[in-house]
Amino acid sequence: MSQLFLRTLRDDPSDADVTSAKLLIRAGYIRKVGPGLYSWLPLGLKVLRKIENIIREEMAVTGAQEVEFPVLLPKEPYAATNRWEEYGDNIFRVKDRHEADYLLVPTAEEMFTLMVKDMYSSYKDLPVTLYQIHAKYRDEFRPRAGMIRGREFVMKDAYSFDMTEEDLKKSYYMQRDAYERIFKRLGVEYVMVHANAGPMGGFASEEFLAPLPIGEDTFALAPSGTSWNVEALTTVKPDDIDYSQTEAMVALETPDSPTIESLVDKANELHPRSDGKTYEAGDTLKNLMIAVMHPTGEREIVAIGVPGDRQVDMKRLEASFEPAEIEEATPEDLAKFPELVKGYIGPGVLGPQNADDEGKSRIKYLLDAHIARGSEWITGADLPGVHVFHAVYGRDFEADGFVEAVEVRTGDMSPDGSGPLSLERGVEIGQVFQLGLKYSQALGLNVLNENGKSVPVWMGSYGIGVSRVMSCIAEYHNDENGLKWPASVAPAQVHVIATGRDQIAFDTAEKLVADLDAAGVEVIFDDRAKVSPGIKFKDSELLGMPLIAVSGRDTVANGTIEIRHRDGSDTQVVPIEEAAEAIIKSVREL
Amino acid sequence: MSQLFLRTLRDDPSDADVTSAKLLIRAGYIRKVGPGLYSWLPLGLKVLRKIENIIREEMAVTGAQEVEFPVLLPKEPYAATNRWEEYGDNIFRVKDRHEADYLLVPTAEEMFTLMVKDMYSSYKDLPVTLYQIHAKYRDEFRPRAGMIRGREFVMKDAYSFDMTEEDLKKSYYMQRDAYERIFKRLGVEYVMVHANAGPMGGFASEEFLAPLPIGEDTFALAPSGTSWNVEALTTVKPDDIDYSQTEAMVALETPDSPTIESLVDKANELHPRSDGKTYEAGDTLKNLMIAVMHPTGEREIVAIGVPGDRQVDMKRLEASFEPAEIEEATPEDLAKFPELVKGYIGPGVLGPQNADDEGKSRIKYLLDAHIARGSEWITGADLPGVHVFHAVYGRDFEADGFVEAVEVRTGDMSPDGSGPLSLERGVEIGQVFQLGLKYSQALGLNVLNENGKSVPVWMGSYGIGVSRVMSCIAEYHNDENGLKWPASVAPAQVHVIATGRDQIAFDTAEKLVADLDAAGVEVIFDDRAKVSPGIKFKDSELLGMPLIAVSGRDTVANGTIEIRHRDGSDTQVVPIEEAAEAIIKSVREL
Repeated sequence: MSQLFLRTLRDDPSDADVTSAKLLIRAGYIRKVGPGLYSWLPLGLKVLRKIENIIREEMAVTGAQEVEFPVLLPKEPYAATNRWEEYGDNIFRVKDRHEADYLLVPTAEEMFTLMVKDMYSSYKDLPVTLYQIHAKYRDEFRPRAGMIRGREFVMKDAYSFDMTEEDLKKSYYMQRDAYERIFKRLGVEYVMVHANAGPMGGFASEEFLAPLPIGEDTFALAPSGTSWNVEALTTVKPDDIDYSQTEAMVALETPDSPTIESLVDKANELHPRSDGKTYEAGDTLKNLMIAVMHPTGEREIVAIGVPGDRQVDMKRLEASFEPAEIEEATPEDLAKFPELVKGYIGPGVLGPQNADDEGKSRIKYLLDAHIARGSEWITGADLPGVHVFHAVYGRDFEADGFVEAVEVRTGDMSPDGSGPLSLERGVEIGQVFQLGLKYSQALGLNVLNENGKSVPVWMGSYGIGVSRVMSCIAEYHNDENGLKWPASVAPAQVHVIATGRDQIAFDTAEKLVADLDAAGVEVIFDDRAKVSPGIKFKDSELLGMPLIAVSGRDTVANGTIEIRHRDGSDTQVVPIEEAAEAIIKSVREL
Repeated sequence: MSQLFLRTLRDDPSDADVTSAKLLIRAGYIRKVGPGLYSWLPLGLKVLRKIENIIREEMAVTGAQEVEFPVLLPKEPYAATNRWEEYGDNIFRVKDRHEADYLLVPTAEEMFTLMVKDMYSSYKDLPVTLYQIHAKYRDEFRPRAGMIRGREFVMKDAYSFDMTEEDLKKSYYMQRDAYERIFKRLGVEYVMVHANAGPMGGFASEEFLAPLPIGEDTFALAPSGTSWNVEALTTVKPDDIDYSQTEAMVALETPDSPTIESLVDKANELHPRSDGKTYEAGDTLKNLMIAVMHPTGEREIVAIGVPGDRQVDMKRLEASFEPAEIEEATPEDLAKFPELVKGYIGPGVLGPQNADDEGKSRIKYLLDAHIARGSEWITGADLPGVHVFHAVYGRDFEADGFVEAVEVRTGDMSPDGSGPLSLERGVEIGQVFQLGLKYSQALGLNVLNENGKSVPVWMGSYGIGVSRVMSCIAEYHNDENGLKWPASVAPAQVHVIATGRDQIAFDTAEKLVADLDAAGVEVIFDDRAKVSPGIKFKDSELLGMPLIAVSGRDTVANGTIEIRHRDGSDTQVVPIEEAAEAIIKSVREL
């Protein structure tokens, strides 16, 4: 360590917001050079390379072959798939001196697709799976959490190419198995979460989330152990309700009640329930107007009916409309339908209640999936200051269908029937995705099948956030004193400390390091002169090698070396001459 | 090869302009994705990694430690050294979504300097040498020669940090020695060329050029074997000439002779030489007016006197004025000196001949270094249509000094006295450079010395064009049939071919491959069914592994394997059971 390019910091860097970033910077693994931009110091680069090599080994097991694309890529392939537009501000765009457009690679579906198109032309060439481990870029609005949400980061991205959907599934499960092996070897916890399949809806996709409170992703965990990304979660269809005893629908004055809160107050004040209970937000049905922006350019105005006690989740709602995007309807949108009375919109002018001559709804009306047939509601009467009471879905109004519109709540029922869901936070460290034909069709990746017919290729994509996973490993493996690397990714297995003023302690440590080197054990050697034992011990805990061996006062006095496990599981004191062997044995058992 | 992601091309790609690019693309090592942008296919990536690892091994020998910076870097450090401006159109600039300025790293002096500044503070910390192997970017006006002049390329850049100039020299020579070992191991020819030291003038710098006719750099080679970059070459001072017999200077009418050619014609026509010979261009002295743009902003007009038979070399001339830049003087510049008569400018109004009251030249007059004291010239008389004849430098006019102003020519004398120079072309594959204090002063990299005084750190920089050197290896190691990789960088040592319709040939080859694998020999196995032997042999020569082993007709008929060296040096035919051993022996001898 007298030579190693390393300085540890006593204090947390002021701008690091999560434990892993604090520790990786303090321990001299990385340095921040700008928002979401990090440099690798020698020890950090060692950890990164070990993670990369574990990924390479497991990719090799699947038969995947490594390639590499430039970081700077021409616009054209991304324009062909429309992603040049779709990325909006989220990508870094570059113009060259001739004013030609380029981007810094966000993900490389297009490039892999075109590479296979360039090289392959027949069913005989398939299957093939290719990958790269390389920098990726996102122009995050607010980079955070160190390397967990950076703007330049290392990613492993793999793509499989198959002749049939069935073969794609085989490739998909081969990669998925590899991911489980990888994350286990890396010592990072993970949950496999059923994910939204995205634009190709209906195809399988799973995310690997590291369950961590700092995570930005929420997933729903069922008692069965199955997990879902909340965007992928489907609501359990509620049982029909018997409405034979429900009062008849009636329109009642509810002045100045355009919000749920004001409506509930007014209802209890002016029209109290006959059973003595009070109305609550969950008794009201609010009707949200949204604009659905179809890829064709069409802007469709749609009404969404949701229970008044539930928050609309625009991400879940948008997922129901993919590949279209959605936003709240604007005053201009609403002005086209004079029957809509702001604050008092009700089913009376929506969906089948307002059909044209051909029986088609003028304004499509979709109900949140929690709404049961036969349920009773207070909802807008389409007149200012008036609501209808005892409106029963299935008796007093109909809709055009159901949609996942509201946020998932702890206690909602799991779709697999195993009971109530709990909501957890996680960091996405990997995703496996059956892309289907999207990119092969957009970019013309066809091959000849056995009958000589040109058919598009079935693709899958498989990503791992390599620098992000390193941060997650650090999130899991630390204590108040510093990092505690798993042996598989530690920059060295052993941290040898020589302390004190006695040359014997340093000479003994040096010989021990030489013996360990010769045995192929990776060592960090703290041979710094004039640095106190306290600082050396602190640094060894901060740096976090799995084993710490100390040559110091006891070595001089008793001829012994102390061997400690960083995780606190074991401490041995062994004679000098047995130290190398004891350490080698402990390394093997790590 | 039935599984390997590889397709060879029969024809040269139409837009590849040099042999290495043609072969690397045809053999499936790389693919072009845009001007100066290349993707790596599996075999190409293997070669690249081998080159990188040889560099890493030799960097480790020097004690250099590996780090890595982002590719996307903030503007500020580059603005502090003024390089943000100086690079002009040559760098890729990026704005993020908040309109902050970034660049794609061209070279990383600033980042390394700041990293050491961040980590180190004392003389006790030094010396240290850091390096990275990473992508670099130049927005070349016209990318060419495949990966030799690309826009995204892999570079190894190292920086040394020392307390004194003497220590810097030690670090410099350590890196220089490592470079020689690296290029020898890579099998690439190189010439060490004395280079222009650039803005820090006076400090040593050497370029490693691969002598190749496709190179864009010209270097001058002396009979002693020493080489110079032409910008760094100093002209041998010519001996003084005895002018005691030279005729007296005389002004003569030479109407319509503003160019050297017209002047020579007019002189021979109107004023023929008294000795019966004819005047030639080399008898005339032309006076070029340039503007020197000093870093202070001052624009100084300077006259340069050069022999009429020599072309001015603006790059060599500019090197004499560094860090100032130069350009030809404009009509506006010249208008400030009415004594200058366009086309007829002579020493009479230049330099000491036109001094102010304090004896300072109004127009600085510098002579090209080839001009001998006592030499005789026809030159401008500062009157329209008039030149002076027999003007002797040292008798009839003086100057303010000498400058390297003209192109180097084959036959010019070497500065080391070993005889005439020859001019050669080369590709720059490396450079070692004693930067001195430029970056540490610009960015405030100071440390405390032994006396507790804050002093700037002496820096050196050391670069290797990694992807470029791969192209140069391919330029040297090929023949009309394809590539011939040196064993040190070949993607595999052995290319095993199974041919024919007999399963025995395939089974034998498969067993051979397994035996070689088990012995740690890297193998490419052409196990393709239904591909003709001719195509397989052609592909093996195109791909260029050092050894080719064939299991085919003779294997079935005679029980033998043919083992060929790709370089044609040797062919053996050995019994099947001895084949693995014979190949392993040959691999060891490669």
